[in-house]
Amino acid sequence: MAASSYDKLLALSKSISLMNSITHLLEWDQETYMPKDAIELRSQQIEIMASLLHKQRTGKGFAKALSALIDLKTGEVADSTLSLPQIAALREWRRDYLRAIKLPNSFVKQFAKTTSAATHVWQTAREHNDFKSFAPYLEKVVSLNRKKADILGFQEHPYDALLDLYEPEMKTSYLTPMFAKLKMSLTQLLKDISVKPVFPEDFLYRHCPRHKQLDFAHKILHKMGFHSSTSRLDTSSHPFCTELGPKDTRMTTKVHPENIMFNIGAVLHEGGHGLYNMNLPVEHFGSPLSEAVSLGIHESQSRWWETLIGQSHPFWQYFFPLLQEELPEQFGNVQLEDFYHAINIARPGFIRIEADEVSYNLHVIVRFEIEKGLIEGTLKVKEIPDAWNSKMREYLGISPEFDGQGCLQDIHWSLGFMGYFPTYTLGNLYSVQFFEAFEKAHPNWREHVAQGSLDFIRDWLKENIHKYGRQFTPGELCQRATGKPLSQEPYVEYLTKKYRKLYRL
Amino acid sequence: MAASSYDKLLALSKSISLMNSITHLLEWDQETYMPKDAIELRSQQIEIMASLLHKQRTGKGFAKALSALIDLKTGEVADSTLSLPQIAALREWRRDYLRAIKLPNSFVKQFAKTTSAATHVWQTAREHNDFKSFAPYLEKVVSLNRKKADILGFQEHPYDALLDLYEPEMKTSYLTPMFAKLKMSLTQLLKDISVKPVFPEDFLYRHCPRHKQLDFAHKILHKMGFHSSTSRLDTSSHPFCTELGPKDTRMTTKVHPENIMFNIGAVLHEGGHGLYNMNLPVEHFGSPLSEAVSLGIHESQSRWWETLIGQSHPFWQYFFPLLQEELPEQFGNVQLEDFYHAINIARPGFIRIEADEVSYNLHVIVRFEIEKGLIEGTLKVKEIPDAWNSKMREYLGISPEFDGQGCLQDIHWSLGFMGYFPTYTLGNLYSVQFFEAFEKAHPNWREHVAQGSLDFIRDWLKENIHKYGRQFTPGELCQRATGKPLSQEPYVEYLTKKYRKLYRL
Repeated sequence: MAASSYDKLLALSKSISLMNSITHLLEWDQETYMPKDAIELRSQQIEIMASLLHKQRTGKGFAKALSALIDLKTGEVADSTLSLPQIAALREWRRDYLRAIKLPNSFVKQFAKTTSAATHVWQTAREHNDFKSFAPYLEKVVSLNRKKADILGFQEHPYDALLDLYEPEMKTSYLTPMFAKLKMSLTQLLKDISVKPVFPEDFLYRHCPRHKQLDFAHKILHKMGFHSSTSRLDTSSHPFCTELGPKDTRMTTKVHPENIMFNIGAVLHEGGHGLYNMNLPVEHFGSPLSEAVSLGIHESQSRWWETLIGQSHPFWQYFFPLLQEELPEQFGNVQLEDFYHAINIARPGFIRIEADEVSYNLHVIVRFEIEKGLIEGTLKVKEIPDAWNSKMREYLGISPEFDGQGCLQDIHWSLGFMGYFPTYTLGNLYSVQFFEAFEKAHPNWREHVAQGSLDFIRDWLKENIHKYGRQFTPGELCQRATGKPLSQEPYVEYLTKKYRKLYRL
Repeated sequence: MAASSYDKLLALSKSISLMNSITHLLEWDQETYMPKDAIELRSQQIEIMASLLHKQRTGKGFAKALSALIDLKTGEVADSTLSLPQIAALREWRRDYLRAIKLPNSFVKQFAKTTSAATHVWQTAREHNDFKSFAPYLEKVVSLNRKKADILGFQEHPYDALLDLYEPEMKTSYLTPMFAKLKMSLTQLLKDISVKPVFPEDFLYRHCPRHKQLDFAHKILHKMGFHSSTSRLDTSSHPFCTELGPKDTRMTTKVHPENIMFNIGAVLHEGGHGLYNMNLPVEHFGSPLSEAVSLGIHESQSRWWETLIGQSHPFWQYFFPLLQEELPEQFGNVQLEDFYHAINIARPGFIRIEADEVSYNLHVIVRFEIEKGLIEGTLKVKEIPDAWNSKMREYLGISPEFDGQGCLQDIHWSLGFMGYFPTYTLGNLYSVQFFEAFEKAHPNWREHVAQGSLDFIRDWLKENIHKYGRQFTPGELCQRATGKPLSQEPYVEYLTKKYRKLYRL
């Protein structure tokens, strides 16, 4: 009886997962191969899938199947024959369902319409450094996000309701002091570095043909554990990774002919996301047990490979000779040490997505503080440019001259994403805290990586993070994998140690 | 009131078209870019879309919207404010609806299950020339097709019900004498040719690199009127064309490095299908008025470009010098006349898809006669190999030694398609009959084509065929465009004239 109720719910949920994966294909195709004039029809295709998905998620059939196993009001699970992972899955199903029925259709439509218009206006505003034309649209987006927080509900802080969409159970009261301490340490470290001489880096920016860049990208992905029978790499205007199913991971990169490191960083980053997707337990496909637990944890996986591995010395002990072999004109006369220093230059800049490991999180904190103020109502939209510029000066020591390089640089707000930015920094913090635990299990990791072995890393991540899907909350997962709650300390320690050595501080 | 009822129906129908186009993307991706191990999930994605589509097509909402405008029993349209095209659309909507509700879900599932197993067995059977292992599966397929004909209903002949799925209103009693006459003429023409010396053709089969083949393919498509903003060409193991929407036509070709003409033929063929799709009236997207009228008419468009244009002398007057320029080693010393003769060699062979213009339809007639016997019950499955081989000997003068080259060569029967093969020959007959009319409107077409102009051809096809969608039945469309009902005469006359000249008969 219980098994059959569970299987019935799982089957309904599986159809939701399948419909979701179909939407992902529509999106993937839009960014890779779709002829550009097909965009209008593509939006309609995505819209109809969203509407079918919403019906399936909130329909009577799903509610009935779910409430046969878990009390929708209390969250109590009566059936004692269910396993712990099954009970966890029920908790997550209930969580998704209660959220899905909270937002009225009319609100969802208004939100979609407003953000679609805002995105359109934002594109032009960014080009023309014209914050004023964007402001009225952003005001609507902020107001809708405040309304969303009210509808979704919160106990301590309205921003919690938004955070929770991307990072379940994360609280503003937890983030605020952690980010404040992080900010202080990073600002100081960046200052210490700024008085030191800059490493040579011109050799990074030579012309490197597209096919050679893509060949090297495939070499890295192969070593990370990707196979062409279950994944692929394409190009798009912004790199991304999407999962179309347990055996269908699609990653993209972008080739800048004069900057091979952009492509390498993108491939390691998206590869990190891809491995998480690929290692989710196939046997639970359709249930929360085979879904990623949060954006922060997802980002920890991408940053792990992009920075902790991909900007590490042992990684390039193995890969730099291969790069030299492939590109003798560019790298034949470059020493490994010089290359390693060049790819780790820390230097304040205006643009978040171009930032180094030290300054990156300061960019995120600027956004977090502004968002929090907007949602609380302590900051007005028209005050954003000044707030942005003064925070940039305070934390990074530089201030943009144009809003296109400042508060207009990111697409997130126009898309309606508020509470999303913090997950970038959470990803970095998680990654290093996980790495500490990994290092205890594999004290000789450097030697193995220097010999080109990466499998044991992937295995550790699978065993300690990937395989659980949403069985635990992000907080529980962190505690289990690292023995302590998330803090900024390991990250600050890692950065300080690495950059002291690099810059001889 | 009427307009709003019509718009309501159109909106429901548009969501069906969108869901259909999403399925087409899933299929396109499966054949082009999907990692191979994702096939199981892809089948599930396609299955769920099929089930959603079926619900939408046969649901109460659609039935209500439709019956508000047309009497489902009598087909009578009461509202006098509707235009003729709108009334035609209602007729087609009703036609689709009545068919969709006729087949019970259990039958559709059994059909899908049986043909899936049959396709699997067929693949191995073909490889091993083992008809016996396939026979029990084919027996089930035949029996299900007979049942399908009974469920769908027919007046004269059970095969009519199957034909009607692909070629609306076509009748066995119309096909049988037409195909019999065609067979006699073609068999005689092929005999007359067989005593003539074979033209040199070795220069066609030189190594030609993939990128050069694809470059040339794009040149042809560009001249045909395709643009990268609304269409694309990829490669797959079997060339095909699919429409993902009015501004998203996807074609594929296959590159055999030693046979550039395969690729060119495929591109012209799929391009012909593609132009039909692209020229359907965008403003009616979602209604039958923007859908292709039949497989036979669709095939007339592909064969028009592949054979009537693509194997014509004037086409190569323009394109052969370009080919020589691109591939001087292969074609630099070849004369246009020799090239034109080589690409038009008529010679009996075992394989339908490799057949020339003269013998192609004899292959189709072999299949038609066997299918008709199977559905009537006058031929048994176990008798197929003998029937096939003796018909091949009688019509083409050759008989295959292995069933893999004979009755096991096509996938169609294992997929459950019976009544489909005739549309290939209907396509050829339509194409030439249309061409006769086109030639009257453009007596100087040869001169224009020889100068590389193809636009006027596309325009004529759009004006006389494409723009009507399903407004007329295939028979009405033929009558309108050519002034007479379809017959084999224009085709026989065209072939006789062309091949008499080529072979100096």
